[in-house]
Amino acid sequence: MHDSSPSFVRGWLAERQDRGLLRRLRRASPVASSARFVHDGRQGISFASNDYLGLAHHPALVEALIEGAKIWGVGAGSSALVGGYTEAHAVLESELAAFLGFPAARVFTSGYAANLAVITAFAREAPTAIFADKLVHASLVDALQLARAGGAKVRRYPHGNLSFLGQWLEKSREPVKLVVTDGVFSMDGDIAPLSALSELARAHGAWLIVDDAHGFGILGPAGQGSFADAGLTPQSHWLWGVTFGKALGAMGAAVLGAEEAMLWLDQAARTHIYTTAMPPALAHAVHTALQLVREETTRRDRLAALIHHWRQGVARLPAIEVIHAPEPPESSSSALPRLPFSRTPIQPLILGSPGQTLAIEQALAQAGFFVPAIRPPTVPEGSARLRFSLCADHGEAELDALLEVLSPIFQQFPTADK
Amino acid sequence: MHDSSPSFVRGWLAERQDRGLLRRLRRASPVASSARFVHDGRQGISFASNDYLGLAHHPALVEALIEGAKIWGVGAGSSALVGGYTEAHAVLESELAAFLGFPAARVFTSGYAANLAVITAFAREAPTAIFADKLVHASLVDALQLARAGGAKVRRYPHGNLSFLGQWLEKSREPVKLVVTDGVFSMDGDIAPLSALSELARAHGAWLIVDDAHGFGILGPAGQGSFADAGLTPQSHWLWGVTFGKALGAMGAAVLGAEEAMLWLDQAARTHIYTTAMPPALAHAVHTALQLVREETTRRDRLAALIHHWRQGVARLPAIEVIHAPEPPESSSSALPRLPFSRTPIQPLILGSPGQTLAIEQALAQAGFFVPAIRPPTVPEGSARLRFSLCADHGEAELDALLEVLSPIFQQFPTADK
Repeated sequence: MHDSSPSFVRGWLAERQDRGLLRRLRRASPVASSARFVHDGRQGISFASNDYLGLAHHPALVEALIEGAKIWGVGAGSSALVGGYTEAHAVLESELAAFLGFPAARVFTSGYAANLAVITAFAREAPTAIFADKLVHASLVDALQLARAGGAKVRRYPHGNLSFLGQWLEKSREPVKLVVTDGVFSMDGDIAPLSALSELARAHGAWLIVDDAHGFGILGPAGQGSFADAGLTPQSHWLWGVTFGKALGAMGAAVLGAEEAMLWLDQAARTHIYTTAMPPALAHAVHTALQLVREETTRRDRLAALIHHWRQGVARLPAIEVIHAPEPPESSSSALPRLPFSRTPIQPLILGSPGQTLAIEQALAQAGFFVPAIRPPTVPEGSARLRFSLCADHGEAELDALLEVLSPIFQQFPTADK
Repeated sequence: MHDSSPSFVRGWLAERQDRGLLRRLRRASPVASSARFVHDGRQGISFASNDYLGLAHHPALVEALIEGAKIWGVGAGSSALVGGYTEAHAVLESELAAFLGFPAARVFTSGYAANLAVITAFAREAPTAIFADKLVHASLVDALQLARAGGAKVRRYPHGNLSFLGQWLEKSREPVKLVVTDGVFSMDGDIAPLSALSELARAHGAWLIVDDAHGFGILGPAGQGSFADAGLTPQSHWLWGVTFGKALGAMGAAVLGAEEAMLWLDQAARTHIYTTAMPPALAHAVHTALQLVREETTRRDRLAALIHHWRQGVARLPAIEVIHAPEPPESSSSALPRLPFSRTPIQPLILGSPGQTLAIEQALAQAGFFVPAIRPPTVPEGSARLRFSLCADHGEAELDALLEVLSPIFQQFPTADK
C-alpha cells in the first residue's frame, strides 16, 4: 500500500477493532435452505437471511433460472436503453404491475440502484423539497444526499412523526415535493403509517416514495406488501419500490408507478441508463418467484405463525422488555434489552452495547445459531442489536432451541430497568 | 398521476421529444449471439452490445450458471457482511486478484455500486481531495457528487490533461488524495494515460482509482486490461475496478487493491454493506467467464482484427474525418463527422446533431443494423454519435455490409470542413 494512505486505513481499521466494530466477511458453503448455514465447516441454523419465504432454494425458482439461462444466455450485454432490455424484463414488469395494481414498472439491478434513481430523477429538473423519515435505508440516505448535492432541499422527520412532516409540507413552496419512507424499516421491523402518509402527501401535492423491500411478498393478504397490509390500493401519486433479493429469493428490484413517471425514469434515472441491465435469465427467474409468492400462500401463513411463536417465546425470557403494540413516534422505551413491536419477520433484540451484542452473537454461534450482530453505524449509537430474521423454512422446534440458549444468557442481565 | 406532479413530468417528456432526445425501451427477443438482435420481429446485426468477446451466450458460461444455480440456489439472501458472502464469491475474488496481480479483491453487484463504494469509502474519514478526468463514467460522476456532499474537495481536470492534474496535486494539502479515471472511456474508446497518471499519483502520495470496465478482458496480452496494455503491473497505491457485465458477458463488478484497502471497503463501502450480495450462482459463472477470457485468446485476436478492418473501412467512407493517432488532451479536431482514435471495440462516429444521429440510427435499423444513437446528456452537447460496439462474433462481411449502407448516407454530407 502507498506510503501516505495506509496509515489512515490502518488507523481506521485499528479504531474499529478497538470499539468492537470491525466487520469481517465469513464465507458460507452451499446449503439447501436459507434457514441453514455452513461457515468454515461449522453448521447450524441461520437467522441471518432476508429470504423470508425460503424461495432462494425452491426447486421451481432454481429451474426457472436454468431455463432462463438456456433461453437468454448469461449477461444482458448492455444497458436497458441501449439494447439490454428484453421480453423477459418486459413480462416481469407487466406481471409485477398487474399484481400490485400499478400502471407500470421498471426493473433495476438492485434496490440501492432503484432508490438512487427514483429520488434523484424526480429532483433534478425543478426546485424540489424532500421530506424523509429519519430511519430510511442507507440507500435512500445516499439518494437524499445526491439529491441535495443537485440542489434539492432535504429534511428528515423524526421516525414516524407526521406532525413535523405535516408542518414542513404546509410551509414548503417547492413545485416538486417528495415524501420518502421505508415500508417496513429494515432494522426494527416496524411498518410506516402509510395511510396517513399517503393522505398527507396527496393533500400537499407531493409524491409518496416508498421502499417496500421488506414488505413485498410478505405483508397483505396476497403478499403485495405494506400498502395491502394497510388496506390501501395504489394511488396515482405513489412511486413504489420493491426488491427481488428478499422475499422473492433472487436479486434486483423494481419501481412502480404511473406510465409517464416510468417513462421519465427512462430519461433521467442514471442507475437505469448507465448500468448493464439485469441478466434476462434472472428476470425470467424473478417472474417465477412472483408466481410462487402468489400461489404458495402456505409459506406466508407458516411465517406468520413462526413470528407469533417467536414473540411469545421471547416474552418468557428473563430481563427482556417486550413491546406489544406500536409505539407513538419517537417514544420508544429506553429499557434494554428490548424486543420492539414488529409484525414482520424482522425481530431484533436491542441490547445497546456493541461488545455485548457481539459476545452473544458468538455464544449463539457456538451453540449452532447464526444471528447477526448489527452495530453502529448501521444502527444508531447505543442501539446495537441481534437481528433475528425469521424464514418460512424455520421450524418451531428450532425457535424453541434458540430460546433455550438465550434464556441463561439473559438470566445474567440486570433487570433494574424493568 | 397526481395533480401537481404530472405537469412537470409531461413538460419534461414533451421537451425531450421536441429536441429528439426522448429515449424509449425496445424489447429484445432471445438471440444466439450478442452480435444479433430481434426487436418486434425485426432481426439483424447488433452493434449495441458490450459483450465484446461474445461470452454472454457461450455454452460454457451458460453451463456454469446452470451448475451454479444447482449448487447455490438463486439469491444470496442477505448482504455480504451479514451472511450472503459465499465460497463462490471468495474463489472468484482470489482468482481475479491472482489473474490481475493484486493482493485482494471485493465483488460488487454492479460497476455503479463499486464506483460509489470505492470513492466514498476512502473520502469519508479524513479531509480528502479528489481529482477526476472530465469524461469519467456517470457512476463516477455520482460518486464524486456523493463524496463532495460528504465534505471532499472535488475537481475535474480537462480530459487527459495531466498538467492541470499535476498543478492541482502539487497544491493539495489534504491528507487523502484520489486521482480518478476510466481506463477506457466508454463513449470515445480512448485509453487513459495510465503510466503518467500512476507516476503523478505516486509522487504526490495519492491513490489512483481506475474504472477499467471497458478495458478488462480486452486489452493487454492476456486480457488483464488497460494497465497491461500500458506495460504496467499493479502498484500498491492503485484501487482497480473491473466489471463482469461487458467482456465477461455476465453481470457485476469488482474492486482490487491492497488487503487492508479491501478490509476498509468491508467497513465503509455502503453499496457493499447495505445491499443483497451478488447471487453466488452468478459469482460461480463469472469465475468460468474469467477462465474463458484467459483461455480463448482467439476471441481477443479476432476482435483486434475486426477493429482494424472497421477502421480501414470507415477511412474509405466519404466525408468522415478519421483520426489515426491519439490526440493531445483537449485538442480534438472539430471536423464532423469524425471517427476518433480508438484501439478498443468502442468505435463511435461523432455527428454532432442528435436529430441527424437518430435519423441515421433509423436508416441503419431499416437496413438490418442496430447501432445505438448516443445523445446528450450521455455525451456533451454537440457531440451526438453513433456508437459501434464491435464483438468477436461479428464477421468481416457484416462490417463490410454495414459500411455499404453507410457510404451513400455519408455521401450526402457536406465535406467543406475537410
